[in-house]
Amino acid sequence: MPANMISKILEKSSVLPLVDDVIAPIHVKTAGGAPRTSVLRNPNMEKLQKGYLFPEISIKREAHLKKYPDAKVISLGIGDTTEPIPSVVTSAMAEYVLALSTPEGYQGYGPEQGQMNLRKVIAEEVYPDMGIQESEVFISDGAQCDIARLQTLFGPNVTIAVQDPTFPGYVDNGVIVGQTGSADEAGKYAGIAYMRCAPENHFFPDLSRVPRTDVIFFCSPNNPTGHAASAAQLRELVDFARRNGSIIVFDTAYAWYVSSSSEAAGDGDKTKPRSIYEVPGAREVAIEISSFSKFAGFTGVRLGWAVVPDELRYADGSPVARDFDRIVCTCFNGASSVAQAGGLACLSTEEGRDAVRRVVGVYKENARVLVDTFASLGKEVYGGTDSPYVWVRFPGRRSWDVFAEILDKTHVITVPGSGFGPGGEGFIRVSAFNSRDRVLEAAARLKKFLPGLSAVPL
Amino acid sequence: MPANMISKILEKSSVLPLVDDVIAPIHVKTAGGAPRTSVLRNPNMEKLQKGYLFPEISIKREAHLKKYPDAKVISLGIGDTTEPIPSVVTSAMAEYVLALSTPEGYQGYGPEQGQMNLRKVIAEEVYPDMGIQESEVFISDGAQCDIARLQTLFGPNVTIAVQDPTFPGYVDNGVIVGQTGSADEAGKYAGIAYMRCAPENHFFPDLSRVPRTDVIFFCSPNNPTGHAASAAQLRELVDFARRNGSIIVFDTAYAWYVSSSSEAAGDGDKTKPRSIYEVPGAREVAIEISSFSKFAGFTGVRLGWAVVPDELRYADGSPVARDFDRIVCTCFNGASSVAQAGGLACLSTEEGRDAVRRVVGVYKENARVLVDTFASLGKEVYGGTDSPYVWVRFPGRRSWDVFAEILDKTHVITVPGSGFGPGGEGFIRVSAFNSRDRVLEAAARLKKFLPGLSAVPL
Repeated sequence: MPANMISKILEKSSVLPLVDDVIAPIHVKTAGGAPRTSVLRNPNMEKLQKGYLFPEISIKREAHLKKYPDAKVISLGIGDTTEPIPSVVTSAMAEYVLALSTPEGYQGYGPEQGQMNLRKVIAEEVYPDMGIQESEVFISDGAQCDIARLQTLFGPNVTIAVQDPTFPGYVDNGVIVGQTGSADEAGKYAGIAYMRCAPENHFFPDLSRVPRTDVIFFCSPNNPTGHAASAAQLRELVDFARRNGSIIVFDTAYAWYVSSSSEAAGDGDKTKPRSIYEVPGAREVAIEISSFSKFAGFTGVRLGWAVVPDELRYADGSPVARDFDRIVCTCFNGASSVAQAGGLACLSTEEGRDAVRRVVGVYKENARVLVDTFASLGKEVYGGTDSPYVWVRFPGRRSWDVFAEILDKTHVITVPGSGFGPGGEGFIRVSAFNSRDRVLEAAARLKKFLPGLSAVPL
Repeated sequence: MPANMISKILEKSSVLPLVDDVIAPIHVKTAGGAPRTSVLRNPNMEKLQKGYLFPEISIKREAHLKKYPDAKVISLGIGDTTEPIPSVVTSAMAEYVLALSTPEGYQGYGPEQGQMNLRKVIAEEVYPDMGIQESEVFISDGAQCDIARLQTLFGPNVTIAVQDPTFPGYVDNGVIVGQTGSADEAGKYAGIAYMRCAPENHFFPDLSRVPRTDVIFFCSPNNPTGHAASAAQLRELVDFARRNGSIIVFDTAYAWYVSSSSEAAGDGDKTKPRSIYEVPGAREVAIEISSFSKFAGFTGVRLGWAVVPDELRYADGSPVARDFDRIVCTCFNGASSVAQAGGLACLSTEEGRDAVRRVVGVYKENARVLVDTFASLGKEVYGGTDSPYVWVRFPGRRSWDVFAEILDKTHVITVPGSGFGPGGEGFIRVSAFNSRDRVLEAAARLKKFLPGLSAVPL
């Protein structure tokens, strides 16, 4: 077909030819308006549902502020830290930064996997007696970015399981790399095993009913439910992965919030591990990802890490860590050296560790206030003890409706539970990340308003 | 088949069952040794050739240091900046960081797309009169990371073209997301169009012989050849993309090194654009990626950006920027806020802009020294005028051999040209990123040694 004929067809049609070897004037103005390339949109991107949860909430917040320009909005929504970073940490970053202006202090590219002194202090301080070597710790710019890199590493052919509800990043990144089919009306993607975690099963899935998948994403303390899995539950999870030859990706972004529970005294099963590597046999089946965001206030500074043990192998016997190292070198180029200097200050001295623990204590006290608020109103409330998140049930109601109504009546932003998966429907997540004053003010508003809300039908 | 039979078979076999619905005790010790999961290695990762270039060079450097523990090694290898960052920039970062310890100055998550003031100053200062809006600028942690995110965005079904030789990140990230077949013996991946850029074609491909692809990666000034494309060449490129309905990804990490050439005076065709958006019609076909690494010394601080114009559309008419925004929100969480404060200080005042221009000037003078060194020895030498890279031909020799011999005889680290693609074979890349003293010392060693080298046969 001559080029001018193709051209004419194109002018009449909005369907563009997909054949690579047709050299044609593709870039045409269609009747509808704007010119367009002939590049097909990535079908995996088309599968993604609506917006990403937190930007969606931002949009609703903006709309609310337009409607009520004078409202004193209190955000107990996105898990964004609000307490200042301890000065022992910022001083170390400032010192590092200023030295970059000197010939002696200047540093360019660091190792893609992170500074060895930071990798070492994480291995020693976060994983004492767990056999984690510094070479197994990969420094990153945050757990969300590591989730994306891990999904790139695993690729489109693996099957995955996720808790339901859970942080949306595991699923969304799986959709993007092509691990799933389309979503159904409830928002569940074909090809993903959703492991329901609800009050009825103590927030731990009945593994006898979970199909084998290649990868199991598991977040503990969980976002959004706030539930920290017990040692007995995690032993069950590791055994399940070992039996199935699966890889667990264990997300401990909230591990610093786990309480040393007195009820666990004398009962090892009830202790709540802060790392999957406290569980025997985990090294051969588990990757752990974590972050400085929620314990050190690094949400904007950006710093996290992944642990990939040497023993973790693919079916062909090749080490997972070798491929992950290649991903880190090829898709990433290391976390900001300034953030790494800050991370080192958080963990390398008793002063730093105490300072960040005090900040965690502030948020934990906020969480207690919120739990008490909802409990005093007779609500079913979970989490908040080992987590900065409080998980509240509104039986018979839709999460987004409750979110909207609370926002409209109290100017308090929460997160609709259904944003974390179909299993979150009927719940809202309330975050303890705000100043004490604002949390108390929000609690007062909720106490005034909630009795009215609970009467509203579905 | 009962589970215990499968178990027995597995014990005798190193081949594991690949069928997902077989629930079996997969995690077994094989005769060979280590236990393994039954997760299949991502076949795209298997396609990647050997190590990533720069870590490979690090390994060879370490081996050299073991062999010659007293050698004063000079690195003109990896393009890593060495000059201190101007204090106007580090002071701004230090001030920002210290404020994070105060209630007023603390900031958590920023917008995933970057701080609006930084996006605005990039639009204004880097793209004056090019019609780039701040909303079209996405702040990142560096151009390499944006390449990875763009390849994730495009997905496995697009076809790509790259310059040959070129920065390996475009190809490697394309392999990882599944855009290619396997590599042949020359290192070319099936499914990629390699656009040869050599002295013989003025480092610009003969586009009449380049097949249509969905995406064209183009780096100017080029890494590694140092060639900055002329206005006439880039008009040809944009026209080619418009005719084919392709998307250009234009990498300007080295744009600040472009000289305002006197030879171009009075001849617009010979000017060397610092941005693809200087070329009419580019907005509808081009994404631009860039970085603070090479002009502001931010290789370790990590900061870059991507421009995705509103007019850039997929074949279905949907905006590319909308999907890229989703990628940025889902796979990334914004660049470090500290790095962003530094980026703002580089660009928002005349003092900052002058300071970074002076640093660029230091490296450009180094490049001139290196060009003169090789030219005085009668070598075919390119680049160095609009780029920190000098590209030297060693006819009839293999790049890795030249690299190894130069390292062994002079303790100077270069980069083998073949690491940038088959078209780089027979060349080495020499970087101007080092102190003046070291560059002069390296030049002296090369002058002493090179005459001997050129006599060595293939």
